[in-house]
Amino acid sequence: MKKTNVKITYIGGGSRGWAKAFMIDLAKEDSFTASIYLYDIDNDASKMNQSIGNDLALRDDVVGKHKYIAVSSLKEALTGADFVVMSILPGTFEEMRSDVHAPEKYGIYQPVGDSTGPGGIVRAMRTIPIYAEYAKAIGEYCPNAWVINYTNPMTMCTRTLYKANPSIKAFGCCHEVFTTQRILAHILNEKYGIKANRAEIAVDVAGVNHFTWVSSARYQNIDLMPLYKDFVQKNYLEGFDLDESEHRINSAFKTSNKVKFDLFKRYGVIAAAGDRHLAEFCPRTWYLDSPKQVEEWKFALTDVDYRLKDLSERLISAEKLYKREEVLKLSDTGEEGVQQVKAILGLQELVTNVNLPNRGQMAQLPKDVVVETNAVFRSGRVIPVVADELPEEVISLISRISREQEVVVDACVNFDYERVFEAFVNDPLVSLPLDKAKALFTEMVENTKQYIPHADEFLAKF
Amino acid sequence: MKKTNVKITYIGGGSRGWAKAFMIDLAKEDSFTASIYLYDIDNDASKMNQSIGNDLALRDDVVGKHKYIAVSSLKEALTGADFVVMSILPGTFEEMRSDVHAPEKYGIYQPVGDSTGPGGIVRAMRTIPIYAEYAKAIGEYCPNAWVINYTNPMTMCTRTLYKANPSIKAFGCCHEVFTTQRILAHILNEKYGIKANRAEIAVDVAGVNHFTWVSSARYQNIDLMPLYKDFVQKNYLEGFDLDESEHRINSAFKTSNKVKFDLFKRYGVIAAAGDRHLAEFCPRTWYLDSPKQVEEWKFALTDVDYRLKDLSERLISAEKLYKREEVLKLSDTGEEGVQQVKAILGLQELVTNVNLPNRGQMAQLPKDVVVETNAVFRSGRVIPVVADELPEEVISLISRISREQEVVVDACVNFDYERVFEAFVNDPLVSLPLDKAKALFTEMVENTKQYIPHADEFLAKF
Amino acid sequence: MKKTNVKITYIGGGSRGWAKAFMIDLAKEDSFTASIYLYDIDNDASKMNQSIGNDLALRDDVVGKHKYIAVSSLKEALTGADFVVMSILPGTFEEMRSDVHAPEKYGIYQPVGDSTGPGGIVRAMRTIPIYAEYAKAIGEYCPNAWVINYTNPMTMCTRTLYKANPSIKAFGCCHEVFTTQRILAHILNEKYGIKANRAEIAVDVAGVNHFTWVSSARYQNIDLMPLYKDFVQKNYLEGFDLDESEHRINSAFKTSNKVKFDLFKRYGVIAAAGDRHLAEFCPRTWYLDSPKQVEEWKFALTDVDYRLKDLSERLISAEKLYKREEVLKLSDTGEEGVQQVKAILGLQELVTNVNLPNRGQMAQLPKDVVVETNAVFRSGRVIPVVADELPEEVISLISRISREQEVVVDACVNFDYERVFEAFVNDPLVSLPLDKAKALFTEMVENTKQYIPHADEFLAKF
Amino acid sequence: MKKTNVKITYIGGGSRGWAKAFMIDLAKEDSFTASIYLYDIDNDASKMNQSIGNDLALRDDVVGKHKYIAVSSLKEALTGADFVVMSILPGTFEEMRSDVHAPEKYGIYQPVGDSTGPGGIVRAMRTIPIYAEYAKAIGEYCPNAWVINYTNPMTMCTRTLYKANPSIKAFGCCHEVFTTQRILAHILNEKYGIKANRAEIAVDVAGVNHFTWVSSARYQNIDLMPLYKDFVQKNYLEGFDLDESEHRINSAFKTSNKVKFDLFKRYGVIAAAGDRHLAEFCPRTWYLDSPKQVEEWKFALTDVDYRLKDLSERLISAEKLYKREEVLKLSDTGEEGVQQVKAILGLQELVTNVNLPNRGQMAQLPKDVVVETNAVFRSGRVIPVVADELPEEVISLISRISREQEVVVDACVNFDYERVFEAFVNDPLVSLPLDKAKALFTEMVENTKQYIPHADEFLAKF
Repeated sequence: MKKTNVKITYIGGGSRGWAKAFMIDLAKEDSFTASIYLYDIDNDASKMNQSIGNDLALRDDVVGKHKYIAVSSLKEALTGADFVVMSILPGTFEEMRSDVHAPEKYGIYQPVGDSTGPGGIVRAMRTIPIYAEYAKAIGEYCPNAWVINYTNPMTMCTRTLYKANPSIKAFGCCHEVFTTQRILAHILNEKYGIKANRAEIAVDVAGVNHFTWVSSARYQNIDLMPLYKDFVQKNYLEGFDLDESEHRINSAFKTSNKVKFDLFKRYGVIAAAGDRHLAEFCPRTWYLDSPKQVEEWKFALTDVDYRLKDLSERLISAEKLYKREEVLKLSDTGEEGVQQVKAILGLQELVTNVNLPNRGQMAQLPKDVVVETNAVFRSGRVIPVVADELPEEVISLISRISREQEVVVDACVNFDYERVFEAFVNDPLVSLPLDKAKALFTEMVENTKQYIPHADEFLAKF
Repeated sequence: MKKTNVKITYIGGGSRGWAKAFMIDLAKEDSFTASIYLYDIDNDASKMNQSIGNDLALRDDVVGKHKYIAVSSLKEALTGADFVVMSILPGTFEEMRSDVHAPEKYGIYQPVGDSTGPGGIVRAMRTIPIYAEYAKAIGEYCPNAWVINYTNPMTMCTRTLYKANPSIKAFGCCHEVFTTQRILAHILNEKYGIKANRAEIAVDVAGVNHFTWVSSARYQNIDLMPLYKDFVQKNYLEGFDLDESEHRINSAFKTSNKVKFDLFKRYGVIAAAGDRHLAEFCPRTWYLDSPKQVEEWKFALTDVDYRLKDLSERLISAEKLYKREEVLKLSDTGEEGVQQVKAILGLQELVTNVNLPNRGQMAQLPKDVVVETNAVFRSGRVIPVVADELPEEVISLISRISREQEVVVDACVNFDYERVFEAFVNDPLVSLPLDKAKALFTEMVENTKQYIPHADEFLAKF
Repeated sequence: MKKTNVKITYIGGGSRGWAKAFMIDLAKEDSFTASIYLYDIDNDASKMNQSIGNDLALRDDVVGKHKYIAVSSLKEALTGADFVVMSILPGTFEEMRSDVHAPEKYGIYQPVGDSTGPGGIVRAMRTIPIYAEYAKAIGEYCPNAWVINYTNPMTMCTRTLYKANPSIKAFGCCHEVFTTQRILAHILNEKYGIKANRAEIAVDVAGVNHFTWVSSARYQNIDLMPLYKDFVQKNYLEGFDLDESEHRINSAFKTSNKVKFDLFKRYGVIAAAGDRHLAEFCPRTWYLDSPKQVEEWKFALTDVDYRLKDLSERLISAEKLYKREEVLKLSDTGEEGVQQVKAILGLQELVTNVNLPNRGQMAQLPKDVVVETNAVFRSGRVIPVVADELPEEVISLISRISREQEVVVDACVNFDYERVFEAFVNDPLVSLPLDKAKALFTEMVENTKQYIPHADEFLAKF
Repeated sequence: MKKTNVKITYIGGGSRGWAKAFMIDLAKEDSFTASIYLYDIDNDASKMNQSIGNDLALRDDVVGKHKYIAVSSLKEALTGADFVVMSILPGTFEEMRSDVHAPEKYGIYQPVGDSTGPGGIVRAMRTIPIYAEYAKAIGEYCPNAWVINYTNPMTMCTRTLYKANPSIKAFGCCHEVFTTQRILAHILNEKYGIKANRAEIAVDVAGVNHFTWVSSARYQNIDLMPLYKDFVQKNYLEGFDLDESEHRINSAFKTSNKVKFDLFKRYGVIAAAGDRHLAEFCPRTWYLDSPKQVEEWKFALTDVDYRLKDLSERLISAEKLYKREEVLKLSDTGEEGVQQVKAILGLQELVTNVNLPNRGQMAQLPKDVVVETNAVFRSGRVIPVVADELPEEVISLISRISREQEVVVDACVNFDYERVFEAFVNDPLVSLPLDKAKALFTEMVENTKQYIPHADEFLAKF
């Protein structure tokens, strides 16, 4: 039974990264047909994506004949939507520069700076108010739509959607766990010569986004955990990079999984995100004490100049696609959004990891906080699966960040930035005396105040 | 990748009901090959089933070539098992006669008497001690085996396994929910002319066995709950019997789903078991006040004479199969056990309802009590899925029985029958003054004391 | 350090019962001085009480020189209050007549009808909306005041205060537990010849109001529970009436504690309220199946005619006090309100039972529901004390009613009377088929609709 | 009603510190009479205390005429005991030297080293096995006795008692909160000229021992929290020492409460223990990064040489008392143990802070972990009082240590020192790479292995 006329709204529809991947995946899918409404504060970018998207349906090698429509009105974009995809970046790279680099003068080094630490917290201050607005708009214009969030800070954005609109049906998606599945597939192949694709590696996951843990990994009747243990033992000192191309090793995103391996030795479960993320959730002295220590652990502090360069390349590429100087390659995107849409439409069942409010899936954490576990996607439902208990020490680390996230979301929704500062000063990456923490927070808010509602009022009395 | 030499142990392997269905389903399955060890206190019955089972592999129309081995030693049966199927009946039909009929002189009518009420409680007193023993034997001989329980009282048996062996990997299976799926498929067909099989009806379930509730029912992109509501409205007074054959309507198992419909009108969610079971979990005055009231609600009080007759027919049929006078028909058994085995072997994914200790899947009930919800079956894991919240009134009914079950299991494991009586006298079906309750309990224990450890000591001082 | 100018507001200040007791207790208290603002929809009654109260301060035998002021404006009454005492009766005895007697034609007999059962539920429908209004007014005019509730249904009224004004500081008081302390004091005296007053009997209590349980009872270094057990054994059949005056035995409030003793034999803990209340929280068949059964259990169905007679006597008595034809006797009121006020003012410490939202004091019940346990009263705080765990069967009975109360409060605050009916039909005293339950509910709402907001709209579509 | 022949057993009865204070307080108490059985592995020390104790009863200025009996058999000491006081130090000061000073070469500075951090953990390894043994002996010889623990690590010792003997009636006492009450009394006096003694300052407390927090502080009708806030503001930079004698300021226990004030500025609640303790529960970089930082925060790293000197002074003083060259001064001990005994005997009511398993008193922490909150002491009961919710950030710090303590207790009871190491490496004071943490742990265990059961086996395979 084919589903027709599915309406998918893409907020951040002018994006050059996620949107492209989504289009590629839709191009491969013909079990349903959809109209994708692209909405972006940069309407020109949406229009460019509309053109690139609609070119796809004309191609013989594209089975998914979907339609793209750039719209400039949020109301028009949302009304009657079956799905809403959200992928936005409030502020520019200049704000991100402040998030990532302003703390460095206090000895605080952040490889990513988008989920936790001083950078993650200030980014949240820009993003949460906007998310609260979108949540209300969705409640008004398309209360029955499914909302798929890709924006970081993932946990806090997803939590905001539910806080501002408790009856929303939203979940957050992140591909970091997939990399762990790929490493496990590599190990399986190395050990037994079995080639499995990553989705065949059945992992049980629990945690918060970018700090998710794999407690069980299996392929058919093979337990992969002992294999992983041996692998860690062998590669602990030198590390292991799944993608050994020269490019990757020298790149701003390089990782040798040494942090991942170290955490496994400590706790016996697999930290599922990349080292750059993982380090940010641990006490600062473990992996981020200095650029030298980062060097020793063989991961990178991704600077914002690099991100700017990367963006400009993506802009050039988009331009070429738009002008039909290039053809969009139907590569493997590594994303699952379209498969999730298909499952929710009742066309397949899918068990995968996803960010949702805790309704019991992580009994070690309080209710309602957003956690990342597996969920069953099927006919009209996204239902979390109960996660294994994690070691107490890991829960100690997770519940620390989970509490911080709860406070920051609640404070930002109420524009209570004094309360945000209480969380900021308690963050393990911050770890500064009160007066210095206050100076840093003031500077970071000042730098980015254009995007933080009521920032001036706050700064005046702080 | 075919799995070979899977060892499945069947405790109660002389059974004429469940065992036959299990053999039929195995006969259809060739994704793995298994040896099934049949163990029963009636070893002759096991041997008969061994012969019937091994005949199957010789047939051309049978793809699953499995081997059956009757063994008389529990140790031999269990050692090295990958799966243990449990389906036993402690005591004879004479004990069941006491369970079901002794309370009638006090005005207590039980349509089934195997899960709750005076019958269910005394049956538990016979079964729990045995289950505690099996749980320990499994821990000793095959600690890594998966245990599939079919014995009633389902919830209390499964709970006992975990209480006596906390590291056991056990779950309980029951097909009552399937009937609800079939009714929903019927309604879907009636309304839209769509023919779906029962497994395609995606239901979300929560509760305790035989008192499980469906909070959401969907087929692909169709919500079946509004259809069910209309259906109840239309059929509330007269009832509806899915199987309209003359045989069923007059039979001891007849049901018109009037109780199911009444409960839906009360709570807006679907009680998933048959009316005979459902009535036993509600206050006595609702549906079981008298045989006349039962008649009005159009279900049956299944008497034990009927069950005896039914058994003798099954014995004759088994005899014929054994003597090869008849051939086992590869009919649709309506059971899922073999599919679950296949999923646990990593050969498919399956989402279905199952009885497991509460690890968060029903946040409205305490941890550790056994509940029935959906679970994901896949590579080496059976992972519960978080259930929807049920209406407070339904939880009121469920948590009442859940508490009773906890007390009875704990008391029986410790042979503390005074404590069992405290639960007995609180049971809504009992609802007697203390002295009468005591007389009834004494009589029922006396009747069946042969199968209740330490019963004489208890009766002497009670 | 004397506290002066304490402002106490009495809502229901025209009352002839509670108000009198409060005045008597204040008359004996000189550790602080207060102005008591009497507010009542019957302002004449307030004025009468003002006069009676102010007469007290003139007397030589009165040490507490407090001032009474009848006011007709709620704003004036509340503004600046340190304490607010609430004791009201929405509707008249005609409404109570419907609550208590309308269900009788369906075989439902209620000895009190003010806390649970059909009477309690419909009474709640009249009271909860008013309580929500008062809660908001308190939030506006005296947000820091302590609120002492005496109105029934106690649990639901107190819960409403917190639901409508989450930052309120309110608790509910009931003297039912005191009677159990007096029975225990009687037993202590009977056994050891020790005369203790009721407050010296240290009891640990847990439950919901009128269904509170004593898990431990001690006097100095004597455990009273074994004494109570012997006492129950001795008096189980005939019962025991603490107050053996002819008057009491024949009165509409008579009790022989047979229900209390029966519940002790069932559970081993002491049900602390009077039998007339206790019976209403148990399955109907236990004690309330018929007037004959009530007779056998030796308690009374208090009819409303009796209450009317009683009220008229109290009116005459008030009239005489007002006209100074009589002098208010400074008898022992058996109430604790004034001692609680004194403790909150920091002038003593007091541990006593009180109704408060659950913050952990009863870990067996959900958070936020109103429970009755001990609490410490001292300087500016009323802090619940963690209660003992109760037997599972008792929790089964308590959590049933607690869930019902949650639903009714939430539904009434939102005027969602369909939802109230869902609870009504699940109430064990109701225990009727759906159609009859609906007829009864309709009749009871119709009878009392003058006091139920939006009742007509509801009845029109029900 | 006088209580006679109360049997109090003192384990660690040869102690020169706590035992003396206990004797002094008993000397002042005549509401009951007791025999105190002194038990110690150093029986000579017990005998010396027996003599000192019995001298007291001969004095005219001593009202409490109690008897002291040194016994060398644990069975004799415990049999029939009403109360058991426990105050022991497993190992000598040489073990303590390793606990406190071995970590210094890794940059880990511990002012106390007895509750948390590397020192606290290794001390727990020596103490927990002994406590498990005592718990079982108490269960055997005096199952109804009340057990009062004074030994550190307080939380872990108390938790061990319950783990090894779940029906024990034990609680832990610590006087650290009293100092906070004294500071508040000082502030009250400074502000209003009111002289209150510390027990009149009503504080609400919550947390774990040595990291307990005051959420509310009141004297009669005065809220002391705003006064404290002003006081912190005024004294934040310079600090404040309650005891300004020259002796204290230079001593090894000096404190200026700067850490306490800093924590108040961060969270708005009062950390109740001394700065030396508080610093150990916070991230290492806050207050313990270096001796210089400690100097800046104006507290002391109490070295073990100082403790040795202090002990030798106490030995000399004990010798003099024993030889009657000196008379025991009936000074104010600042301890509450005797008052607690009196309250449990039913001779008074007392509300004070105490360490108990969590039964709901701290709903923000899991059940069963040992927490410090207020409790009501009265006739045969010690009942925790529900604590206020603490700020999320504080709970973050508390639940971190609480989890560590749970792991260490559970691991030590099972001699699973690999598991202890997992906690050790996660401890924020440790904060070392895995290899260095392992070296340190090995050294510390090696140093003290004489007192750690199975230490050699562990070291051989670690």
